[in-house]
Formats: sequence, C-alpha cells, structure tokens
Amino acid sequence: MELNVYLAGQIHDDWREELRAKSEKMGLPLHFLGPMENHERSDNIGEEILGEQPDNIFKDEAASSLNNLRTQILMQKADVVIALFGEKYKQWNTAMDAGAAAALGKPLIVIRPEELHHPVKEIANKSQLTVESMDQALQALSYIFETK
Amino acid sequence: MELNVYLAGQIHDDWREELRAKSEKMGLPLHFLGPMENHERSDNIGEEILGEQPDNIFKDEAASSLNNLRTQILMQKADVVIALFGEKYKQWNTAMDAGAAAALGKPLIVIRPEELHHPVKEIANKSQLTVESMDQALQALSYIFETK
Amino acid sequence: MELNVYLAGQIHDDWREELRAKSEKMGLPLHFLGPMENHERSDNIGEEILGEQPDNIFKDEAASSLNNLRTQILMQKADVVIALFGEKYKQWNTAMDAGAAAALGKPLIVIRPEELHHPVKEIANKSQLTVESMDQALQALSYIFETK
Amino acid sequence: MELNVYLAGQIHDDWREELRAKSEKMGLPLHFLGPMENHERSDNIGEEILGEQPDNIFKDEAASSLNNLRTQILMQKADVVIALFGEKYKQWNTAMDAGAAAALGKPLIVIRPEELHHPVKEIANKSQLTVESMDQALQALSYIFETK
Amino acid sequence: MELNVYLAGQIHDDWREELRAKSEKMGLPLHFLGPMENHERSDNIGEEILGEQPDNIFKDEAASSLNNLRTQILMQKADVVIALFGEKYKQWNTAMDAGAAAALGKPLIVIRPEELHHPVKEIANKSQLTVESMDQALQALSYIFETK
Amino acid sequence: MELNVYLAGQIHDDWREELRAKSEKMGLPLHFLGPMENHERSDNIGEEILGEQPDNIFKDEAASSLNNLRTQILMQKADVVIALFGEKYKQWNTAMDAGAAAALGKPLIVIRPEELHHPVKEIANKSQLTVESMDQALQALSYIFETK
Amino acid sequence: MELNVYLAGQIHDDWREELRAKSEKMGLPLHFLGPMENHERSDNIGEEILGEQPDNIFKDEAASSLNNLRTQILMQKADVVIALFGEKYKQWNTAMDAGAAAALGKPLIVIRPEELHHPVKEIANKSQLTVESMDQALQALSYIFETK
Amino acid sequence: MELNVYLAGQIHDDWREELRAKSEKMGLPLHFLGPMENHERSDNIGEEILGEQPDNIFKDEAASSLNNLRTQILMQKADVVIALFGEKYKQWNTAMDAGAAAALGKPLIVIRPEELHHPVKEIANKSQLTVESMDQALQALSYIFETK
Repeated sequence: MELNVYLAGQIHDDWREELRAKSEKMGLPLHFLGPMENHERSDNIGEEILGEQPDNIFKDEAASSLNNLRTQILMQKADVVIALFGEKYKQWNTAMDAGAAAALGKPLIVIRPEELHHPVKEIANKSQLTVESMDQALQALSYIFETK
Repeated sequence: MELNVYLAGQIHDDWREELRAKSEKMGLPLHFLGPMENHERSDNIGEEILGEQPDNIFKDEAASSLNNLRTQILMQKADVVIALFGEKYKQWNTAMDAGAAAALGKPLIVIRPEELHHPVKEIANKSQLTVESMDQALQALSYIFETK
Repeated sequence: MELNVYLAGQIHDDWREELRAKSEKMGLPLHFLGPMENHERSDNIGEEILGEQPDNIFKDEAASSLNNLRTQILMQKADVVIALFGEKYKQWNTAMDAGAAAALGKPLIVIRPEELHHPVKEIANKSQLTVESMDQALQALSYIFETK
Repeated sequence: MELNVYLAGQIHDDWREELRAKSEKMGLPLHFLGPMENHERSDNIGEEILGEQPDNIFKDEAASSLNNLRTQILMQKADVVIALFGEKYKQWNTAMDAGAAAALGKPLIVIRPEELHHPVKEIANKSQLTVESMDQALQALSYIFETK
Repeated sequence: MELNVYLAGQIHDDWREELRAKSEKMGLPLHFLGPMENHERSDNIGEEILGEQPDNIFKDEAASSLNNLRTQILMQKADVVIALFGEKYKQWNTAMDAGAAAALGKPLIVIRPEELHHPVKEIANKSQLTVESMDQALQALSYIFETK
Repeated sequence: MELNVYLAGQIHDDWREELRAKSEKMGLPLHFLGPMENHERSDNIGEEILGEQPDNIFKDEAASSLNNLRTQILMQKADVVIALFGEKYKQWNTAMDAGAAAALGKPLIVIRPEELHHPVKEIANKSQLTVESMDQALQALSYIFETK
Repeated sequence: MELNVYLAGQIHDDWREELRAKSEKMGLPLHFLGPMENHERSDNIGEEILGEQPDNIFKDEAASSLNNLRTQILMQKADVVIALFGEKYKQWNTAMDAGAAAALGKPLIVIRPEELHHPVKEIANKSQLTVESMDQALQALSYIFETK
Repeated sequence: MELNVYLAGQIHDDWREELRAKSEKMGLPLHFLGPMENHERSDNIGEEILGEQPDNIFKDEAASSLNNLRTQILMQKADVVIALFGEKYKQWNTAMDAGAAAALGKPLIVIRPEELHHPVKEIANKSQLTVESMDQALQALSYIFETK
C-alpha cells in the first residue's frame, strides 16, 4: 500500500524538498503531490499560457486559474493532506486547502509552530492531527504502516 | 423565497452589523448566520463551558471546539457564503471557511479590498464572485431576486 | 405539496411569462425560478456591480459571475428543471444547465420543436421527458399531482 | 501519475487526433477518452445495434442511447474534461458535457476562439480554465506535472 | 413532525386507499406519495401527452417517461418508502423502486404475504423492515412517533 | 431558527426527560428526537408487531429492525447528535450512532463522565465536542443562538 | 482500459457462461462479476455458513444475507450493470439490482425479449439502453472501445 | 480481484493474527487493514509523537488523534469491514467503526458470540451479515469469489 500526500503551504522556500528527503530517508511508501514550487513561475503562469493581461489583478486571476486547476486535479488523488503554516506570508491558500480537505473528508494533518496556536486554532481543531514539525507529521504517517 | 447567508470573516469589528443594516434598508429577504461576534467571548468560550484548561494552547483547542461546532451547524443551513478579507489579522478561519464552502458546493462570494488581490487570488478564483465592498455583495444577492 | 421549477433557456423573448401564465391558469402549485429575463441587464450586470471592465471579454466574464451565482443558488432549490430549446441563438447555457441538472440527479424536462430532434438528441436522451410544447411540459407536471 | 482526459466536442473533424499527436510530441502522460469520432457511425449506431427505427426521431433516440452510454462510462473515469467549442455546428452535446463535468466536480478546461466569448461566457465562467487553443490546454495539463 | 411516505407497488387495486384510510383512522401524521393509481391512465399517459406512438413498445416508452418523472420527483421527497408485493402481476416496478430506495439510503419497509418469502428474500433482506400486512407497516410508522 | 437534536444513549433511565426539562427551562429552540424510551417496549417491539419469534436471538433481530427503522428516519432529520455515555450498560448502540453521525457529517456532541475518558477516547476525538454533563451540552447548543 | 460488468439476473440457467463466451470470442476487455450461479448453493448458503435455521423463512433470510453481501461488494466495483429479464421466474432481484444501479449512477443495460416490453417498461426507461439479446448488449459495450 | 478488509475490534489479544493465518491457509485474496495491534503503543502513541501531555485525559486525546488518523485513512481503502465483539472490554471503538462503516455504505460483517446477541442486536441488524466465528466470516468472504 502506498499513500498519496498533498502538501499544502507556502511556496517561498524548499520545505517540501526537505520533507521529501526525510520521507525517503525513513523509507516511507509516500507519493507527494502539491502546487508549483517555483514561486515566480506560479505567479506568472497565467500570462505564460494565456498571454499578457490588462493589469495585475487580471494577471493574478489568470495565474490562479492554472494553480487551482492543478490543485483540484491533484487533491482529488490525495489520501491525506498536510497543511504547513509558518510565521511569514498570508498563507490564505494553505487555509483554503485545509478547509477544502476537511470538507471533502480527506484526513488533514496541520504543521504549525507552537507560537501560532491562537490564529490557527479552528483549523487545528478541524484537522485530524496538529503537530509542530515535519518529523512529527512523518512519524504519524509512518505509524499507519506499522503493526508493532 | 428567503436565503440563508453565512458571514465568514474576522470578529474584531462590527462589519456584520453594518452589512445587516444595509440589507434591511434594501429590504432583502436574507437571514444572516455567522460566528460569535463578541471576540473576547469567542476566545474564552472553551473555558466558559469546559472549565479551566492547562495552558493557552488547550484553552484555544477548547474554544475552537465550540466555535467549529457553531460553524458546522450553521454553514450546513446556508444557501450562500460571504467571506470578507481585510488588511488586518491573520484571517485563516475566513480562508478555511471559504475553502470548505467551495468544496461543499456552496456558492461563495468573496469581499476583499483591491490591494489584497495578490494573496487572495486563489480564493477569489474559487469563489463564484469576488467584490470589493459589502454594497456590491448585497447588490449581487439582490440581483437573484430581481426579474427586470 | 408545491414544486420549484427552474426554467433554463434563452432570455430573448418572454416565453417564461407565457409559461407562468399558463401554469396559473391551470392552477398548478408550481413556483418558477430562473435567470434574469431582461437580456440587456443580464449582459451588463457585471459592469453594473463590478464597474467598467478592460474589454468585452472581461465584461462577459464579470456578467457571467453574477448570472452563474444566480443559477447556482436557484437550481439547488429546484425540484425539477425545464430546458427550452428553439431555432434561434446558440443556447449553450441552456445545454449546460440541462447537463448540470441531469448530473445532479434533478429531473429534467426538455422542450424542443420537432425539427431540432437531431442536434438535441443526446440531451433529449438524458432528460426524463422531452416534449414539443410548453403545454405538454405543464401537463406532465400536472400529472404528478393527479391521482385519477 | 497518469491522467485520463475526456475530450468533449464536435465529431465533424479530426481535432482529437491533432490534440493527441501534440500531446504525444510533448511526452505528456495523458490517456484520452471521448465519443465515437466517426460521425456517420455515431448517427447510425442506434439502428446498427437496435435495428431499423420508425422514423428519424426514433433513430436519433436510439443512437443517443448508445452515445450517452459511452459518455457516461468514460466520463466517470476522467480526471479532467476538455470541452472544445468552434464556429460551426450546434455543439449542444459539448455544452451538456461541460455542464455535467462541472456539476460532478470534474475539473473543466474550455477551448474556444476569442470571437465566441459572448455565447460561451457562462460555460467559460463555470470552467476552471478557458483558453483559445489546444496548445494552451496542453500547456495547462503539462503544468500539473512540472515542479520547476 | 410529519413524514412523507412513498407507496411503491402495483396499481391494479385500491390498496393505497385502504392504507390511507387506516392511517387516517390511526391519526398518524403521514403524507402519502405514489404513482398514478388509475391503471389505464398510467398506461396511456404517454400518448395522452405526447400523441400517438408508432407501436406498443414506443407507447410504453412514452408512458414510462411520465411515470418515472413522477416517481423521481416524489421519491426524493420521501422520508420512508413502503413497497408492497402480492401474488399477482410482475411487479418489477415495485422491486426497482425498492432497490432505488435502498441505494439512496431511504428507509424501506416491505409488505409481502408470507408465501412469497422465497422470491422476495433479497429485497426483504435489503429492507429495514419486512412485514405481512399494511397494519403492521402502519404500526411500525406509528412506533416512530411514540415515546412510551 | 430551530434545531433538531437526536439523543443517542441508553434507555434505562429518564436522562432525556431531564435534558428536555433543562432545555425548556433555558428557553432553547431545540426539538429533541431519539429512540423509544420505554426499555421493555423497545425490547419487545419486534414481537409486538411481527408476532412471536423462534427464540431470543430472532426476537432481538425483530426488535432491532423496528428500532433501527426509527433511528434511520429520525437521525436523517437531525441537525446535531448528542451521544451520552455512562458507567453502566454496554451502550454499543450509542457508540454505533455516534460513529454513524460522524460519518454522515452530522455534528456530534459526546457527554461522558471524566472517569470514562480512556474507553471513549476515539469517539471523543471524533466528536466536535466532548463534555461531562448535560448542562455543558446545552450551554454549547445555546452558544449557537447567541451573538453577544 | 478494462471494464467491470455486473451481470444481474436469474441463476436458473447458464446465460452468463454464454455471455462470457461471446465476449471472449469478440475479444472484449470485460471482466464479469455477478451472483453465485449455482442456484441450489445460493439457496442453501445461509444454512451452509450459519447453520440450520428455524424454518424456511429464516433460511431464506440467512441466504439472502450472504447473497446481498456478495452483490454489495461486487456492484460497487462495477463500471456498468447488465440486467437480463426473461419469461420465467419472478426475477425481483434483477429488478432490485437494476433500480439500485440506476440510483447509484451506474450505467444500466437491460436485456429483455420484445414480448416483455410492457411489464419492464419503467425499468427500460430508467436504463441507459434496452436491448433484446446478449449480442446487442455486447455490441454496445464493444462500441465504447471503438474509435472508427 | 482482491479485497481490502478492515478489521475493527479490540487490540488486547492477537485475534487478527489468527484470522490472517486462517485466510492465508484458505488461499483467499484478501488484504487486511486495521488499527495498531500493540495495545501499549496505541495508548502511548500520542505522547510518543506529540510529547508529554498535561494529564491522562490529554494523553488519551493525543493518542486518539493518531489512532483515528490511521482508521480514517485505512477505512476509506476498505471494500468490506469486519467488526469483532467479545465478552471483555468496552469495545466502543468497535461499535463506532461499525456505525461509520454502515453509514458510509461499506459492507459490514459482525462477529460476536451468541451470548452477546442482546447488546449487539442493533449493530447486528445494521450489518449485512452477523456470524459467531472468524471461520464463518472467512467462509462468507470466500463465497464472494466462488462461482460453483
């Protein structure tokens, strides 16, 4: 048995690469899905495919059409969703993806630093599990495959 | 025909009161639902009902159990969801509620100031309508009842 | 028992008014829902609420956000959907609404002139009933309330 | 990961062949599904299997039973639906399939020439992405598999 | 609280009238829904509304379009479905309606004479309750409203 | 707005009566639904309606057909489910109803004495709220109607 | 692409073997599922596994538990359901399975001799396709895989 | 064809190992899923991953987050659920899992000693099959693969 894991969260640093490396090191049978991790390209993908837009609002609308197409297709293939929150950035996409996952009955794991407990509290309560680190999230997924 | 409208968004000021007043003035057959609007009580409701908790994280977990119970019951009665975003606060609940509404097939209207177009772009794209003011949101709901 | 009937179809003439009058004359307990019937306003509603758009494509996108918001809210309240096809206009919205109704498990009645049988054949086959006139559609709905 | 793509649209020319060739050239892991592409056979399949029918209307009803059986089985296997609109033909099936896909939560990509923006506007708004060419649609699907 | 009860079964005699009378006598808050009870009209309703058909098979297809439209609309309003089986007639509609009710999660009560236990056994097993008489079915529905 | 509340739990004492009295005293707009509260009748309802059964196992099977019919019909009308656990009795029905409520997306409130925290822990985690007393459960429901 | 086909119908003769042989000869990528085809064993399976039952009604109830378990598991794996009706036997299971398939959105093909058009008319109307022979049903399934 | 079987029940002894051994001996194509079978670890998994908790209630809440995450992910992969009840332990999780399986439309097999027929009666009635031994449950699953 393998599990598809959708990784919701910001795309400003390479946390997914770190998580994938950790998972590989632990030998977990996980297949990771997620958004475009090249932030600049994610912002420009609308104009890249649809051509120049009238202004920045329409440029954003075009980019989000592509990014949401990607999320819609990949999240429906996910067995479990991890949503990572951090100190920086608005991260409203992360929260939207977390809300969608819970509403669709997809198991949701939230990773957030302890300091963020207050603003993330309703999302944490909606998740099946809230942890503080990627290591804990991977231990939780590892637990699913263990019998002893 | 009347419509139930769930009002997702921050609970730091009285924007819902303003919106309800505008709706009443326009004579719209709308029934508004939403979270506890007394912020302090929303934060303390866990300890108010469940008693003192070990620390602030558990206090938050307790409060969010009550707040999410309320949202779960009321959102399932909503015909349409309005999610308001502003410059202040993290507003992750708002984004989570917007994501849940879209995932459940509930029509979603996003209100956000033009300046926020970039961080809210994927939520805007997921909504059925994104506007900049409460007046526009109410005009949109009014349009549903008009025939001329 | 009353039934909500969504009336999908073109908005260039007053066929809905005619159908409502016939229904009233027959004394049927039907409540009709449908799109904005003022065609010009339907085309302009985007700019009316959201302000001037960069060009006609964006004007159309804005208008369709409002029109689809209306359809989404009202169709979920419908017990049965009538889709009327005629010789004139592209009527792609009508076909889209018919497809959505069938996919959602909403009973679908198609009204089309006999001459159109070929292009409308897959929609007719997807409908629960295909007729040639409004009178026949109303007789069908009347039949639901009759016991003798 | 491979994706199943249902190709809704007219069956008068060989646009699907062109699209499949482009996809293969791009090396995309896509598996295409769609209607019978031999138009004459699509029109006659009812009588081919069920025997001669009383008149053309019943011949059409018979053919559409087979064509809809095919669409129903194949669309439920699709991860994403492409609906192509052009200047010619009624294309009501295309619009019906687009409406069904959206109602079923299937991601929808609309391809239409810019000139058709007005009549296709509500379908475009219902889609997750609307483009003008097959190349753009394939770039969008390619984007889902890219990480840089 | 009132309950909508759909009465599936043959339409050759007036068993529904008998059941409604019994229910009224017991003072049960039940609202009964069901097929056209005038058998001749049920068989002819296709031609009555759609006009003369080429032969008896097409006449039947036309009639069943109307009868299924009625069943589809009314069964979705039912809180519980009663399916009555007897010694006479094929009663395949009754079995189809019972199968549909169970698949839709509608509570199903089967009434059948003891002698029919063998051919009706899988339907009985699929039902929530199988009884031998209308009185027992009404006692079961009465039980739902009782507290002592 | 009124809420339907299903009261899952043992039927050996009159806790529902106590809860209803408390709710009435608090003036809450709640409508309570639940199982037959007369324990002896609940055990005998199978034979009461279906006649004498071969042995106690079949008597139980008959009774549970009626009790589950009741639960199935009433739980689908519930906006929220309360499941009460206590020190006595097996209470497997309560746990089954709690599991069903959560799986159906019905908001679930668990009431259990603190001492039972260990055996009820997975159900508590599955609930939206776990409390120790009826008063707390009613305060939680009251909170949903409050705005200050 | 392969399709799973559930074969609903009587188990008194070897029609499934005939159909499987025809399919194999045509080289169709179909995988057939269905009920136990040994009629005697199907009737006795309850007592075979659960032991002797008090009387024939309970024997039937026991057997149908096993037969319905099998159908429930296998039908959820089916891409399409074929329901065969003939002159002999009550065939209520066949009709129940057909109703369940349609209610679950499973494509349904009905095979029935022309003479049975009247009693099977509502099931035929509910099906996506009704034919008179196994050959026609297999041609229809073959059509799904053809492109020319 | 292989089937995924979720094994709900207590984790105090090695009944799953016994069942898996029996299945293997019978050569059944079954793949078994279930909870952590090391009871001590199941109780401590919350603190193992999330760190020390304030008291035993919070320790239980933490453990159940992990155990329910596991169940949620694995049960959605199950084709059939077996729930085993015995004389010892509260087994409320077993009953919750059984209720969830039935509500989700997953086929449910209950194993319980005859003596427990009374307290387990509503769960037995909700199951598709209730047996007294693991051998009977495996014979039932074997029956699904047999054709003679």
